[in-house]
Amino acid sequence: MTTNNNNTLVIIGGDAAGMSAASKVRREQPDRKIIVFEKSAYTSYSACGIPYFISETVKTIDELVVRSPETFRDKYNIDVRTMHLVLEADTNNKRIRVLDKEKNEEFWQGYDQLLIATGGKPYCPDVDGHDAVNAFGISTLKSGINIENFIEKKEPKSAVIIGGGYIGLEMAEALLIRGLKVTIVNRSKQVMNTLDPDMGAIISEAMRNLGVTLYCEEELKSFEMDGKTIKAVVTDKQTIPTDMVVFGMGTSPNTAFLAGSGIELGIMNAIKVNGQMQTNVKDVWAAGDCTETLHLISHKHVYIALGTIANKTGVAAGSSIAGEKVVFPGVVGTGVCKICSYEVARTGLLEKDLKDLEIEYITGTIKSKTRAHYYPNAKSITVKLLAEKNSGRLLGGQIIGEEGAAKRIDVLATALTHNLTLQNIIDLDLSYAPPFSPVWDPVQTAARKLINDI
Amino acid sequence: MTTNNNNTLVIIGGDAAGMSAASKVRREQPDRKIIVFEKSAYTSYSACGIPYFISETVKTIDELVVRSPETFRDKYNIDVRTMHLVLEADTNNKRIRVLDKEKNEEFWQGYDQLLIATGGKPYCPDVDGHDAVNAFGISTLKSGINIENFIEKKEPKSAVIIGGGYIGLEMAEALLIRGLKVTIVNRSKQVMNTLDPDMGAIISEAMRNLGVTLYCEEELKSFEMDGKTIKAVVTDKQTIPTDMVVFGMGTSPNTAFLAGSGIELGIMNAIKVNGQMQTNVKDVWAAGDCTETLHLISHKHVYIALGTIANKTGVAAGSSIAGEKVVFPGVVGTGVCKICSYEVARTGLLEKDLKDLEIEYITGTIKSKTRAHYYPNAKSITVKLLAEKNSGRLLGGQIIGEEGAAKRIDVLATALTHNLTLQNIIDLDLSYAPPFSPVWDPVQTAARKLINDI
Repeated sequence: MTTNNNNTLVIIGGDAAGMSAASKVRREQPDRKIIVFEKSAYTSYSACGIPYFISETVKTIDELVVRSPETFRDKYNIDVRTMHLVLEADTNNKRIRVLDKEKNEEFWQGYDQLLIATGGKPYCPDVDGHDAVNAFGISTLKSGINIENFIEKKEPKSAVIIGGGYIGLEMAEALLIRGLKVTIVNRSKQVMNTLDPDMGAIISEAMRNLGVTLYCEEELKSFEMDGKTIKAVVTDKQTIPTDMVVFGMGTSPNTAFLAGSGIELGIMNAIKVNGQMQTNVKDVWAAGDCTETLHLISHKHVYIALGTIANKTGVAAGSSIAGEKVVFPGVVGTGVCKICSYEVARTGLLEKDLKDLEIEYITGTIKSKTRAHYYPNAKSITVKLLAEKNSGRLLGGQIIGEEGAAKRIDVLATALTHNLTLQNIIDLDLSYAPPFSPVWDPVQTAARKLINDI
Repeated sequence: MTTNNNNTLVIIGGDAAGMSAASKVRREQPDRKIIVFEKSAYTSYSACGIPYFISETVKTIDELVVRSPETFRDKYNIDVRTMHLVLEADTNNKRIRVLDKEKNEEFWQGYDQLLIATGGKPYCPDVDGHDAVNAFGISTLKSGINIENFIEKKEPKSAVIIGGGYIGLEMAEALLIRGLKVTIVNRSKQVMNTLDPDMGAIISEAMRNLGVTLYCEEELKSFEMDGKTIKAVVTDKQTIPTDMVVFGMGTSPNTAFLAGSGIELGIMNAIKVNGQMQTNVKDVWAAGDCTETLHLISHKHVYIALGTIANKTGVAAGSSIAGEKVVFPGVVGTGVCKICSYEVARTGLLEKDLKDLEIEYITGTIKSKTRAHYYPNAKSITVKLLAEKNSGRLLGGQIIGEEGAAKRIDVLATALTHNLTLQNIIDLDLSYAPPFSPVWDPVQTAARKLINDI
């Protein structure tokens, strides 16, 4: 499978997935015509960095930009057109309808090959007032700038965050640092429902200790408005006055514009793709936060919006478009976040996933230290493992701790991907010296405890 | 294979391997008679912590003791006899000759099963004066106390360290912290010959920047003595006056007492064992720093004295002695150390190993950051990978960096053990958030660079 260097590749979306693909194609096909339509003024930025911009840990928004549109144009000969929003894909005629937001003009752009990398947007509840001037989601750099400007100009004293996932918690930390009184409204029993509830409970308590007011098992019902401004959040249990609202209820894919395109959507309306990142429509690829992903442990398709996956699937799409053999295998659901001094990481399946899949499992949790017990700054670390009942095959891991704890999840992610058992983990020749670990790494201590239950 | 609960297990050596085994047997066989002979006054201590005791990072020697002889006696019913040195093993008559160092009396002790866990000792050059009052090796807690007492009482102003391996470098750091002028005499071109020379060069430079005087490609020839005190170190190139000498030339196994026992020794006179930690002699096991180990990548036996291996082989020996099915598979040569702000880690094979084995390989080195480029305290990290020429199978990895760099070696150690390729490493779903990593973890960035050379 080789492609004609002269035909036109059109990419919709100029962030991680789109520009990783564009760069990969450019490396393999120096003369290929590549046009990128990006709805914002930025390319290749780190949306993950926005909470750190809000907290002023990162001083300027420009620091979050990896490569500018100018760099792509001048250095890579990629025709990046910012402030261009794609409204429709007409796959029968191999063309897309584009809005030039600055000129406010629409036009049709033809393509020979198309990559959809439109990313995700903050999930927004279907409640009147969700588009209020003091309601914010976190997605594009623009959304970060909007929050920053609002805080600077309006000097809000309080914020309610709807949803206690990692974006919600990172934003809670950022707003605490900015001196706001922060309340989180969380639907489930504990925050971080990407963890099992027993591990989530540790984070719920930590958030309360940080000074956050946390309401769990409570749901947004409506907003009390004053014109276009939210004055209070109304839940099923109470009314919470607030100066601003942040949505941390997760991400959903930007795929509404594909209605009628014939491109098949899957879970949560994310685009269905194969291992070459091809959609069901010929000459149309998709990558990043607008696509669904295969979970290698559950063997089910999932929707996970993460920068790592966007980069990897972008490169895979670029390789495939350039005619290379490539397979993006999927993910094991690894994630990590930092909330003040707490590090939280997870990989694989949760107890609820295993129950849904009717997989018999065992689970165990240990507490250990990040360094030798006698070495200064040995920090606490809690490791929970889940393994298959009879085989002892690892199925999931969760880590909560302080400095030096979370990155240990990578060993578990590697183990999961390659079907290692608890015994395999115990047998691993992991690194040890007093400044780095107890003599048994905490992930091995967890495996040692659990193996007796197989 | 089951054992009689009533017969006597004798263990020689009361540190990591011996006491891990004793504890494991005790768990499985609550009534088993277990006698441990330990030549020092301590059990289960962390010799790895000695440099941090010397630097006064760890305040008291007792902090390095995990479990005391009293605890083993009272809580675990293990008959630990400290200050008992074993002089001879008479395997034909299933007995050992023991010196009670306090009473200065010898006796024969019979055994039904024997575990040899006598550990290692600092390799000591065959040079007159190596046993001078101001010459020190690092092995037992006593050796640490000896150095500490010497520094306190004699107030040395200068030290020469013979050998630039990790113990030599850790001791260099400790003595710098104590205010001594430190010189390292190193035989090879760079320090840390557990790294490839190009990576070792980074550490050589770092040591010089820390204020160490480093002489490479220089060898100890003799000592200038004043009675029992070394006054100067004489190398093949110069004479270096000094107040004290530290040997950091590696470790050798404590197996001299086995002469005539019929127990087979292997590389560097370390005891040969199978996967059940059995020696060639019936009813005799061995574990820890007195044994050789199978290297899972080279498939050759190696001698590596490390606390992790001692613990693991101790547990394996205990399991086997208690009649459980067990296999200790071997190691991949993972190691890590911290020298001031530098973290150094390695796993697998070096270029020189691959040349010796006549394996065609490719290698590449990248520089990256430990966190997102815009996140505060993003530190430098250098990753070198070695992979098989055609298959792309990982063969080794080396990491040098600052805070947060070294523990990433564990992903490479896991990958090595399970024969992963560079593509497998790229495909891993490793954790990412700005405080923890760039979006491509540095080990993946290294794999991405190298894969183009396959």
